[in-house]
Order: sequence, then structure tokens, then C-alpha cells
Amino acid sequence: MAGKVVLHYFNGRGKMESIRWLLTVAEVEFDEVFLTTREQYLKLLSDGDLMFQQVPLVEMDGMKLVQTKAILNYIAEKHNLHGKDLKDKLMVNTYSEGLMDLMEMIMILPFAADVKTKLDNIQNKAKDRYLPVFEKALSGPIYLVGGRLSCADVQLLECTLMLEEKFAGILAEFPNLKSFQGRMTKIPAVSRFLQPGSKRKPQPDDVYVKTIMEVFDIKSPFL
Amino acid sequence: MAGKVVLHYFNGRGKMESIRWLLTVAEVEFDEVFLTTREQYLKLLSDGDLMFQQVPLVEMDGMKLVQTKAILNYIAEKHNLHGKDLKDKLMVNTYSEGLMDLMEMIMILPFAADVKTKLDNIQNKAKDRYLPVFEKALSGPIYLVGGRLSCADVQLLECTLMLEEKFAGILAEFPNLKSFQGRMTKIPAVSRFLQPGSKRKPQPDDVYVKTIMEVFDIKSPFL
Repeated sequence: MAGKVVLHYFNGRGKMESIRWLLTVAEVEFDEVFLTTREQYLKLLSDGDLMFQQVPLVEMDGMKLVQTKAILNYIAEKHNLHGKDLKDKLMVNTYSEGLMDLMEMIMILPFAADVKTKLDNIQNKAKDRYLPVFEKALSGPIYLVGGRLSCADVQLLECTLMLEEKFAGILAEFPNLKSFQGRMTKIPAVSRFLQPGSKRKPQPDDVYVKTIMEVFDIKSPFL
Repeated sequence: MAGKVVLHYFNGRGKMESIRWLLTVAEVEFDEVFLTTREQYLKLLSDGDLMFQQVPLVEMDGMKLVQTKAILNYIAEKHNLHGKDLKDKLMVNTYSEGLMDLMEMIMILPFAADVKTKLDNIQNKAKDRYLPVFEKALSGPIYLVGGRLSCADVQLLECTLMLEEKFAGILAEFPNLKSFQGRMTKIPAVSRFLQPGSKRKPQPDDVYVKTIMEVFDIKSPFL
């Protein structure tokens, strides 16, 4: 029997949050070990647990998984949250890559110097480049690909919620996306995840940034 | 019948080069349309060909594919260059993501300010973080995953050749990788691709950088 899934990451969103979301929708329970000290990180390294010296690390099915997108892909395939055939998988991956690009721009903000300029750039790209694609894809269909729930839908929900935190009302011009959000948040597992006390993480704060810099021994912000 | 595969990108490596490599190993012939002017890019945009306003764009099987990793995944799956089952696919994706991370660091160098520092950083990471993983994986097996050729092997070959261009002799401490290179370059399609006159692109030069900045209307280097 496979043991319980264990996530090793900081106590914050970062690259792990999309994995938390996907496990939640797949109704896979997980435990979390939070990285808070450099010693913990060095221990993971010396144990050979981090193939490329990076987290996320996910213990699952007797394996130690690294690389966010490889992990997401594995969970999606295993739990029928990927496309049903080659072409549907292609579309799921294409949407998913676009959403990850956009979410990554938000993810690195706490480490950025010129936040105001970067926020403006994100808002412009979201409204001009990304959201119109998904608004159009959802004009009729209730899911992005093949008439069934996929990891791309889960990431779209996560992404639109992140965008609304930064830019209240950004979905006003995107009614299909707003309806999609409404439908997705009615999924019982999603509804529970959105309640206080769940394993969903808040927006990054100073403690989160300070912890990452200590664990990775980084002297100054990267960007 | 599916028509011929057509790649739309700059006349240079960038994000398209891994796609060229994979098509080559899959023995799929392709034509190329080189983006040289902003007008061409604006035409692709107004025709709705670029889902997220970005290239690579690959015309294939009656579709217009975007997002590099989604495209690579599609080609790999279609041509049996992915893992044979869920766990092998996971390993292929994990190696592949690591290699893409490393290659991306090299890819963006022409747009970087402090090239010397970045080169040192790449060399250190390559020797300390990435190459040892692949050296170990190839101590015995002739391919990275499941005893058969996959897109991860193709990317590893591409990546090690790129590293040697920048850091001659970097593979001296990695004999398994050197043997792997030797085996891979004996594949007839690979051997042809490495000959002068093939569709393989040279290292980026000033013309390549200038073209990208003109096509995307970028006023100053990004990094």
C-alpha cells in the first residue's frame, strides 16, 4: 500500500500551492512538513531527497517526486484530471503552461524590486493576453477541455483567485470566467479548501520571504 | 492527411531548438518560416494564431500548437519518445524539466547584462546540481528511463552539447555522459542534424538578438 502523501515545502504558496490545489480536487489527503531552517534543507540534500537541490518535494506512491510540472502531470494522469486522449492532453498542457506562466509572475513578486511596475505589467498581460483566451474557451463549455474537469480548470480557478486578490474586479469584463469560478467553488472539495483552517496558504508575507532567504542562504532579493 | 509540419520562429535556437531536436529524432520532416519583421508577428497575432501572443508556433496535424513544453510533450507522446507508463512518464518529465531549467539559463544569456557572473553561475550549477544527476542515471543504463529512448535523452544530448560550447571540457568529470553523447550522435538522424547545412541553429549572435527585439518591439535588453 502506498503511504500518505507528504509535501515538503515552505509554509506558503510558492510552487507548491498548485500541487495542494490539484491534490485537493483529486481528493487525495496529504500531510505537510514545513521547511523553516537551513539545517532541514541541508538534511534533505544530504539524504539525496532533492534530485536538483530544489523543492517542492512530494513523497507519494513510495517515490520522492520533484519538479513541479512533472508532479502536477503525474497527479493529473493518475486521477483522470488530464485529457482523455493525445489531443485533449495537448490542450490541457497548453492552457496549463499559459496559466503557470501567469501565476509565476505573481509568485515572484515578493522577491522583486520594482513591484508597482511589475504589478501593472501583470495586470495588463492578464487582461490582454491570458484572460481573453480562457473567457473564449468557456463561452459554452463548462470545462476548458473535452467536457470534463482537468488540471487546467483547477489551475484556472487558482489563477483567477490570485488575480482577484491583486486586482479586485479584474473579472468584471470576463463573465464566463466569473461563472466558471462560481461553478468550480461549488465542488465540495474546493469549497472546503476555500474555508479558513484548510491547507490553502495565504498570500506571501515578510516571514515567508525571510524564511526562503534563510533556508537557501540568499543574501539579497533575487530580482 | 496531416500536412507537413511547419515551425514559425526566429532563425535561431531559442525555445524552438528543443522542438527541432525532437522532431529530428522522431524523423518528422519540417519546414521553417523565420520571423524577421514586426509585421509578420502582428499578422500572426491578428490571424489569431498565437494563443498567448508568443512563439514558438508549430503547425502540425491540422492544429496550431503553442507553448514549448506542451508541444514537446505532444510530439514525444505521438512518437513513442515518452515513458511507457505513468511512472516512466514521471521520470521522463522530471529529467526533462531539470534539463529545460538549465538550458533556459543559457538561452537567456544574449539578453543578460552581467554575462560573466551568469556564466560562472551556470557552470557551477551544471557541475554541481545537474550533470551529476544524469551521470548517475547513466551508470549502467544506456538511456535515462525505462531502457528506451525518450525525449529526456534528446534534451540531455542537446544540453550537454550546449554546455560544451560554453565550457569546453566540462564533461571531463562525467564519463558516462561523454559515452552517452557518443552513442546518441551515432543515431543516423542525429548524425545528420549535427552536419553543416542541417536545420540545427548556431549559437545566438547579434542579428538574432536584434531581430527578437525588433519583432517584439523591445527597447532595451530584458535582464
